Amino acid sequence: MTKKLLMLLPHGAEEMEFVICVDVLRRCGVNVTVAGLTDKTVKCSRDVVIKADTTLEEAANEDFDAIALPGGLGGSKAMSGSTKLGEVLKSFESKGKLIAAICAAPTVLLTHSVALGKTLTSYPSFKDEFAGKYTYVEDKTVVVDGNLVTSRGPGTAFDFALKLGEILVGLDKTKQVAKGMLYNMH
Amino acid sequence: MTKKLLMLLPHGAEEMEFVICVDVLRRCGVNVTVAGLTDKTVKCSRDVVIKADTTLEEAANEDFDAIALPGGLGGSKAMSGSTKLGEVLKSFESKGKLIAAICAAPTVLLTHSVALGKTLTSYPSFKDEFAGKYTYVEDKTVVVDGNLVTSRGPGTAFDFALKLGEILVGLDKTKQVAKGMLYNMH
Repeated sequence: MTKKLLMLLPHGAEEMEFVICVDVLRRCGVNVTVAGLTDKTVKCSRDVVIKADTTLEEAANEDFDAIALPGGLGGSKAMSGSTKLGEVLKSFESKGKLIAAICAAPTVLLTHSVALGKTLTSYPSFKDEFAGKYTYVEDKTVVVDGNLVTSRGPGTAFDFALKLGEILVGLDKTKQVAKGMLYNMH
Repeated sequence: MTKKLLMLLPHGAEEMEFVICVDVLRRCGVNVTVAGLTDKTVKCSRDVVIKADTTLEEAANEDFDAIALPGGLGGSKAMSGSTKLGEVLKSFESKGKLIAAICAAPTVLLTHSVALGKTLTSYPSFKDEFAGKYTYVEDKTVVVDGNLVTSRGPGTAFDFALKLGEILVGLDKTKQVAKGMLYNMH
């Protein structure tokens, strides 16, 4: 059955991290729903304006296999401040569903006390914030710990999206997609 | 003085190639104007909907240092069919301004007879179309020949954008931007 992923789009999201995730996973055959955190028209971190398919409020009642959070400082602050997103993340965690975050977005998990105790990574400057609550890895571009997948920045976004593809639809399909994009998997 | 780049956004554009170019060049300090080929709200190749700053018709009277065309099969067909874009590209060529195209977009230069005789690359499947009119390179991710910069696909989009940054604002600034994105320049 087709896998379904909920991709968050807050104002201030890092647009490359967002778009690479959505595009690569759609190429993999994942059914990706783009949910604005609050609005359907969203201004990203470098002023690219993207229209979401729906809002988190509307999407929260649907059933997904995975949720992914793009980075961007403003976007991550907005996601950290969203009680609704905190509830949704805890629901995904309680059901053992895939939770993915890149760049600044792992701080959103910290704020909402999600996936505590797991091993993760993030954009380097946030490292110290995770001390005592997570095991931090800084020598890998993508870190997988059970249902948690984290990554580091725009330059690791292809690897992040392809790892999510590998988990959701398998390595063979993911390799095909990488080849079609002329991307060398790491 | 701040460099100005006109970034085209046709329906069917490859959204990663588009967004990586805009974001990376804005990080480099380039003033990027996003011009929809015909409309200001544009559906890209994997259904991401992006709002342009303006349209080509409106932007064509402004002065730019460079123009860049994203790939995507649908987007490139639309750009090939645009008489207006053909005129704009010929105007950039006659003034020796930077012209950049990635993936399927170098075929747009072919259709409009722009930069004939130069050395270029493209997404591999279009190679034969350039025979006799351009010198084709297939062992480099980015090819620069005078004022023409071409590249191959989503997986080479960071290198493409960073090369444009290097030409427009210099290597030092571009290296800083790549480092901040955690991207290893090739």
